[in-house]
Amino acid sequence: MELLDKLNWRYATKKMDPAQAVPQDKVDRIVEAARLAPTSSGLQPFEVIVVTNAELRAKVRAVAWNQAQITDGSHLLVFAAWDNYTPERINQMFDYTNQVRGGTNDGWEAYRQKLLASYPGRDAQVNFEHAARQAYIGFGASVIAASFEGVDSTPMEGFDPAAVDDLLGLKARGLRSVTLLPLGYRQAEGDWLVKLEKVRRPRDQFVTELN
Amino acid sequence: MELLDKLNWRYATKKMDPAQAVPQDKVDRIVEAARLAPTSSGLQPFEVIVVTNAELRAKVRAVAWNQAQITDGSHLLVFAAWDNYTPERINQMFDYTNQVRGGTNDGWEAYRQKLLASYPGRDAQVNFEHAARQAYIGFGASVIAASFEGVDSTPMEGFDPAAVDDLLGLKARGLRSVTLLPLGYRQAEGDWLVKLEKVRRPRDQFVTELN
Repeated sequence: MELLDKLNWRYATKKMDPAQAVPQDKVDRIVEAARLAPTSSGLQPFEVIVVTNAELRAKVRAVAWNQAQITDGSHLLVFAAWDNYTPERINQMFDYTNQVRGGTNDGWEAYRQKLLASYPGRDAQVNFEHAARQAYIGFGASVIAASFEGVDSTPMEGFDPAAVDDLLGLKARGLRSVTLLPLGYRQAEGDWLVKLEKVRRPRDQFVTELN
Repeated sequence: MELLDKLNWRYATKKMDPAQAVPQDKVDRIVEAARLAPTSSGLQPFEVIVVTNAELRAKVRAVAWNQAQITDGSHLLVFAAWDNYTPERINQMFDYTNQVRGGTNDGWEAYRQKLLASYPGRDAQVNFEHAARQAYIGFGASVIAASFEGVDSTPMEGFDPAAVDDLLGLKARGLRSVTLLPLGYRQAEGDWLVKLEKVRRPRDQFVTELN
């Protein structure tokens, strides 16, 4: 399967070539993969911020363990999850779905009421954690999409989320950053990881079959 | 990009054909995509349980809102995250990596010590939430892999995790179920969702560009 080839090709790129920019159409498709990814109840409780601004990326790098890929790459994707589930956010998605599908039905409206009765009343942190998990599905889809485009990427959790939220104005928008994904092209001669074998736990320590 | 075609093809299948089984080689590649997916520090803090046993799947269905895909499909994947990060688990992965790569280096050993000094001391729930996010990357990879195999799947969070953990004996193994993924083939005539348009928030409500 081609997907497995792509997963084997990709690696968390440690050194990117600052002289090579990723074409915008590739970036657009990498983001589109996140938009098309499945999420719980189809709520898509996250957004993607695409940062090319050099000054802003330098500031993000400063609160992300100084990881050079953030400025050596050409684009920085920031995955930011909803800070909470609110009735407005839930209703917006259900209303929009009705608009696209040209109608509604009783089952769908009952499902809306079920979510409205459960999600907004929960603790905001519980809701954020749930939204963050969905963001990780989209994040993974973008990592895979990059590999299909022949674009290198570095999945990153190593940063100060509150500082990134400040830099990008996310708090006011009800968003909290969860992952970074610099995009660019590997500079193999400066990358210690590119030469090393990919390591994954053997299949028998990862899979259990109950037949 | 072919990946976008696959993401558009897939949908959360509501009715599966009990007469059609997914070939084992396809299931193996769908699981392999999860094994190859990226995870934080490469720790792969999750496992996949593949359930074909009919009686067991019926029991899981009973604690999963009676969703029929669990027994109408031929295989049920259960994604289960580590309940905590322990020194043993961290060391096992670092030791195994050294074994595969035939050596180690100072930077890598310093990184091991950094994780050992931070992860095991944190609250178990915080560690589980972190591990669960990684499991979602693998979960998403398997959803995508199924679409590449022409196999239908239904990503599910709607179940009682503690009850599933009991049924599969996960607690004793330090695992907690986070998602289910029945695999099978759609029975289009009985599936209310297959005819409906896929709905995603418009791009301008999903992406922000900071240039």
